[in-house]
Amino acid sequence: MKTATKVAVKVAVLGGSGYTALELLKILLRHPHAEIVAITSRDAQPISDAHPSLFRRLDLRTEPFDADRLKAKGVEVAFGCLPHGASAEAVAPLLTCGIRVIDLSADYRLRDAAVHAKWYGEPHHDPVNLKHAVYGLPELHADAIRTARLVANPGCYPQTGILGLAPLVHHKLIDLRDIIVNSCSGVSGAGRTPKLAAHFPECNESVVAYAVGTHRHTPEIEQSLSDIAGVPVEVIFTPHLVPMDRGIHSTIYATPTRPVTDAELTQLYRDYYERAPFVRVRTSPPATKDTAHTNFLDLCVKRVRGKVIVLAAEDNLVRGASGVAVQNFNLMFGHDETAGLL
Amino acid sequence: MKTATKVAVKVAVLGGSGYTALELLKILLRHPHAEIVAITSRDAQPISDAHPSLFRRLDLRTEPFDADRLKAKGVEVAFGCLPHGASAEAVAPLLTCGIRVIDLSADYRLRDAAVHAKWYGEPHHDPVNLKHAVYGLPELHADAIRTARLVANPGCYPQTGILGLAPLVHHKLIDLRDIIVNSCSGVSGAGRTPKLAAHFPECNESVVAYAVGTHRHTPEIEQSLSDIAGVPVEVIFTPHLVPMDRGIHSTIYATPTRPVTDAELTQLYRDYYERAPFVRVRTSPPATKDTAHTNFLDLCVKRVRGKVIVLAAEDNLVRGASGVAVQNFNLMFGHDETAGLL
Amino acid sequence: MKTATKVAVKVAVLGGSGYTALELLKILLRHPHAEIVAITSRDAQPISDAHPSLFRRLDLRTEPFDADRLKAKGVEVAFGCLPHGASAEAVAPLLTCGIRVIDLSADYRLRDAAVHAKWYGEPHHDPVNLKHAVYGLPELHADAIRTARLVANPGCYPQTGILGLAPLVHHKLIDLRDIIVNSCSGVSGAGRTPKLAAHFPECNESVVAYAVGTHRHTPEIEQSLSDIAGVPVEVIFTPHLVPMDRGIHSTIYATPTRPVTDAELTQLYRDYYERAPFVRVRTSPPATKDTAHTNFLDLCVKRVRGKVIVLAAEDNLVRGASGVAVQNFNLMFGHDETAGLL
Amino acid sequence: MKTATKVAVKVAVLGGSGYTALELLKILLRHPHAEIVAITSRDAQPISDAHPSLFRRLDLRTEPFDADRLKAKGVEVAFGCLPHGASAEAVAPLLTCGIRVIDLSADYRLRDAAVHAKWYGEPHHDPVNLKHAVYGLPELHADAIRTARLVANPGCYPQTGILGLAPLVHHKLIDLRDIIVNSCSGVSGAGRTPKLAAHFPECNESVVAYAVGTHRHTPEIEQSLSDIAGVPVEVIFTPHLVPMDRGIHSTIYATPTRPVTDAELTQLYRDYYERAPFVRVRTSPPATKDTAHTNFLDLCVKRVRGKVIVLAAEDNLVRGASGVAVQNFNLMFGHDETAGLL
Repeated sequence: MKTATKVAVKVAVLGGSGYTALELLKILLRHPHAEIVAITSRDAQPISDAHPSLFRRLDLRTEPFDADRLKAKGVEVAFGCLPHGASAEAVAPLLTCGIRVIDLSADYRLRDAAVHAKWYGEPHHDPVNLKHAVYGLPELHADAIRTARLVANPGCYPQTGILGLAPLVHHKLIDLRDIIVNSCSGVSGAGRTPKLAAHFPECNESVVAYAVGTHRHTPEIEQSLSDIAGVPVEVIFTPHLVPMDRGIHSTIYATPTRPVTDAELTQLYRDYYERAPFVRVRTSPPATKDTAHTNFLDLCVKRVRGKVIVLAAEDNLVRGASGVAVQNFNLMFGHDETAGLL
Repeated sequence: MKTATKVAVKVAVLGGSGYTALELLKILLRHPHAEIVAITSRDAQPISDAHPSLFRRLDLRTEPFDADRLKAKGVEVAFGCLPHGASAEAVAPLLTCGIRVIDLSADYRLRDAAVHAKWYGEPHHDPVNLKHAVYGLPELHADAIRTARLVANPGCYPQTGILGLAPLVHHKLIDLRDIIVNSCSGVSGAGRTPKLAAHFPECNESVVAYAVGTHRHTPEIEQSLSDIAGVPVEVIFTPHLVPMDRGIHSTIYATPTRPVTDAELTQLYRDYYERAPFVRVRTSPPATKDTAHTNFLDLCVKRVRGKVIVLAAEDNLVRGASGVAVQNFNLMFGHDETAGLL
Repeated sequence: MKTATKVAVKVAVLGGSGYTALELLKILLRHPHAEIVAITSRDAQPISDAHPSLFRRLDLRTEPFDADRLKAKGVEVAFGCLPHGASAEAVAPLLTCGIRVIDLSADYRLRDAAVHAKWYGEPHHDPVNLKHAVYGLPELHADAIRTARLVANPGCYPQTGILGLAPLVHHKLIDLRDIIVNSCSGVSGAGRTPKLAAHFPECNESVVAYAVGTHRHTPEIEQSLSDIAGVPVEVIFTPHLVPMDRGIHSTIYATPTRPVTDAELTQLYRDYYERAPFVRVRTSPPATKDTAHTNFLDLCVKRVRGKVIVLAAEDNLVRGASGVAVQNFNLMFGHDETAGLL
Repeated sequence: MKTATKVAVKVAVLGGSGYTALELLKILLRHPHAEIVAITSRDAQPISDAHPSLFRRLDLRTEPFDADRLKAKGVEVAFGCLPHGASAEAVAPLLTCGIRVIDLSADYRLRDAAVHAKWYGEPHHDPVNLKHAVYGLPELHADAIRTARLVANPGCYPQTGILGLAPLVHHKLIDLRDIIVNSCSGVSGAGRTPKLAAHFPECNESVVAYAVGTHRHTPEIEQSLSDIAGVPVEVIFTPHLVPMDRGIHSTIYATPTRPVTDAELTQLYRDYYERAPFVRVRTSPPATKDTAHTNFLDLCVKRVRGKVIVLAAEDNLVRGASGVAVQNFNLMFGHDETAGLL
């Protein structure tokens, strides 16, 4: 279905039945340098039974997870689309086999196992490999990603918070203890398992906040921003569910430590992201729709009274998960960073 | 919360956790002649825990079903919002206690237990009371409803099919073996139990047909139309799920047995429904939105080439379930047919 | 269509073609003590031509605005549903005729004509009557509303901000210069005139911020909170459009001036709103859906790190406009505050 | 942004501000053998001002239409995304210049100028070129398309009707005078110009039929099916608007002229579309969502009582317009039929 001008990398997708796996498979099908050779799942069935949209597009059966078998098939990298907890159990055998891993779960994102344990409510399952994991935000960690054996693909919300604030934190322009990230997400962010909160007649025509003050993406945002700042950064993060399939919009409030204009701020952001092909700095508020089905993360920054307001928009399934995973894949295997993503 | 000018009828609602129960409770709260004295459910909890919208509007705890206890509370009529099958088990003890029943399930709609068994896949649970049940479509059976002890509240789709075709069948204007009812329903019609088909990211931004040729509302439509015709009527009924909370739209195709104009058809319908306060015959296509949260069923009838096309729109939870149940209640207890419904 | 036990007040609705007018007409049709005797509009037509949902529910023709003619019909109060600017032109002749006015536009909300001119970009059209206008937020100004000749019905967003913050401001619990009101609104808030921003394929499946730092509801929120505080209060208000018909959700961030617990905060709010029949203080995040089609404004207040977060939800067309207008009407004419609204 | 292994064809897009143009541009950006060299529009502006989603993806300014200028730029083919009527005025000068045209408007679809005049209410603007236009449905007319100078890209609804019925008509399996095509479309089908019918709060949460018996896609369906049959075919076509961005679902009813089973029908369809890469014959009802953002048209065919029911689903903007236009482009320029479309 495509004409690869160089040899394609053989890839596996673990946990093929969810939304991030579906999105990933669609991207990989169009990728000039990737070949999907295996999809794992508890149920062995044609992948198009799990995802009818793949009917006649991808003729593969899902299979139980078996690292050795994947190795035997020539798999060089596995994309983990398993739930957190389950993911850590698959990573160790893969790495042992010499298969590199891009893990889309939250299992390897928090560097400090104690912080992980606090927010996820149980000890980390694989503290040994955690030490070697690279946080897969390409705009910040491209070099480390290139050589990583285990990439912790970043969370959907955190990318808007981290990339939305990175220039301000880097330039020490804001108070690091007074940051608010107020986010809205489409319902696909809740996963594919039916539950009342994602039942159409419950969430359609409604907006509601959830996990106020307790969402697990909070420490992920703080970890990255603290790395940039060199000192601890504290964030209040409030997610909301809004009635749409996909898209995340974050409205970020920070307190500048010196006077600054809109024009200065925009320039600062444009300079900071000069070499980032997927970060677009706009001068008008970004709509999530304009990022839908793309790997772009759109930003707009404005001064309003005593605050700097950053608006960030992305597609939660592409930029927020599977697209950035492929961006990481491109870095890891020496492809153009945008391959398969434009 | 309301000033009843005559003594209110004490009512119970069985199976309080679903959407039809919620809609019914909201209507009853506004009804001038009804008092909700009990709500049954497997879980005993404040009803506002099951339905947060009722917080500070209805201060009742749900209780397990117990016909004697309802009788002791003075309940005169019970609205059954239980799933089919379960409903039949509650009806017998209620009737024994002398409590009248308006059953919103499908259990007593099909007069012939054999037909019921064929479409529902098991023998009828309560054939004795089935014999005495009155099909609760007020526009057709008001007299029988007034004195009924057991009313089988009509299905949501069937009302559009039956009332959409009744004038044509009554006047023998169409071929009774060549009728198509093509319907679209909002997702609340699928009930409140989470399932993949009603999971927001699955059904949003999508239209899909289901139960093609096998939907259980088919024999319900045919039974009523056959009663009107005096001979068997056959219908092809195709339901579709569309991404909205509520509303049913049916597009009905029939073959006229003699030439007829739009104007004649409209007049025929207006005459037929002259005394029906909730059937509105329009000359332009009805939008489901214009019937939302009301008990109106809107119709429009047109001649197109060799067919008569009837368009029907209603709110599936009000007109299609709980509103018409209250309309039946009004008839049964001598209230104005529209009480609490305008 | 209803049995009024006391003489109904004759009312007029000005500007009958929009969404707030439609919502108002629906509420008034159910109101036990109101009689709609006139609806004005530039186009003279059956009101059901403008609003098909009113077909066979309200048999009135719209008429051009003429204060004397309304007076001759016995109108005691007019609800103004005109755009801002246009509204001020109708108010003066009405008051001259002795007709009381509940104005749903923004024309009389800002007490200071200079502030109005600054935010609305032109001098106030009717500074004389502006002096006598009462801001119609019943929870704060019931006494003044009762005797007012001109009530400025409050804005949709401001009610969430004002009632969401009033207890904190009243008790001097927060920093009055560090308040953020981050709001999401359904699209009906944009009015009924077609425009690209409200075109279905543009705003569906999208979230976008607008009027960042410049929305006209900002000074309205500040005026009310400053009145409560006795000193100037400053607010950053950021509205967003989300893909739903109706509903406003506000997430409010304030900085407490002393330590405080969730339980204390909840109790403080419950005490403050003890006699407010339409303000519900909840302990879990309110969904806009649970307030849809009602006059309730739901609040939830929580301490998160160094902030107090208040979540507020309402129906923008009922509580945010036409419902609170009827609540004001009830106060003005000595009816129960909840008449027609439960 | 892509590595073309053969020289890319220079293309122009006429009428760049609408939804089909946007979709087309996105597809062309990914196409390995196409280069967008011009976009015409009445307003000269960066294309990303008209379509913010193209910011930093396509750096072109729109320009006024000028066939000679397009020729000078080396344009070999122009995609017409103009409204009907306007399109015909651009086609003649383009053909004169030797630029091939794929016209997405309805202007050249009806071969008979008299039929066009009857349904579109005015004489055809360009009867000369009409004679040479090829109807661009690749599954039926691939050979003619390959050499065509002017391709009339097929309508969105008609493709579901034509491809949904072609196998039955070809095999003379149905009564050609008793066919119903009942269709639902997402709102993007109504175009990008704001109008009340497509205003979010009007069409969200609603289903409504429109143009009952009068829709201009009726003769388009009939023309193609008549060609296949060799005798006139008559169709009743009823479109409906449903609250989603994109997607068309058609439920087609036909009367078989001999007994036939589901299995036979499915096999008949699979054989008929054996070489059609974008027609998928399924055995369960197709959801529009499974075709979203793809060029696939999904079919399912079933026998129900005395009828054959065909279910058809597609994306109205891709398969229904811009995707099939690129499929035609591929045929016209000797590329793989699926290039840029998988």
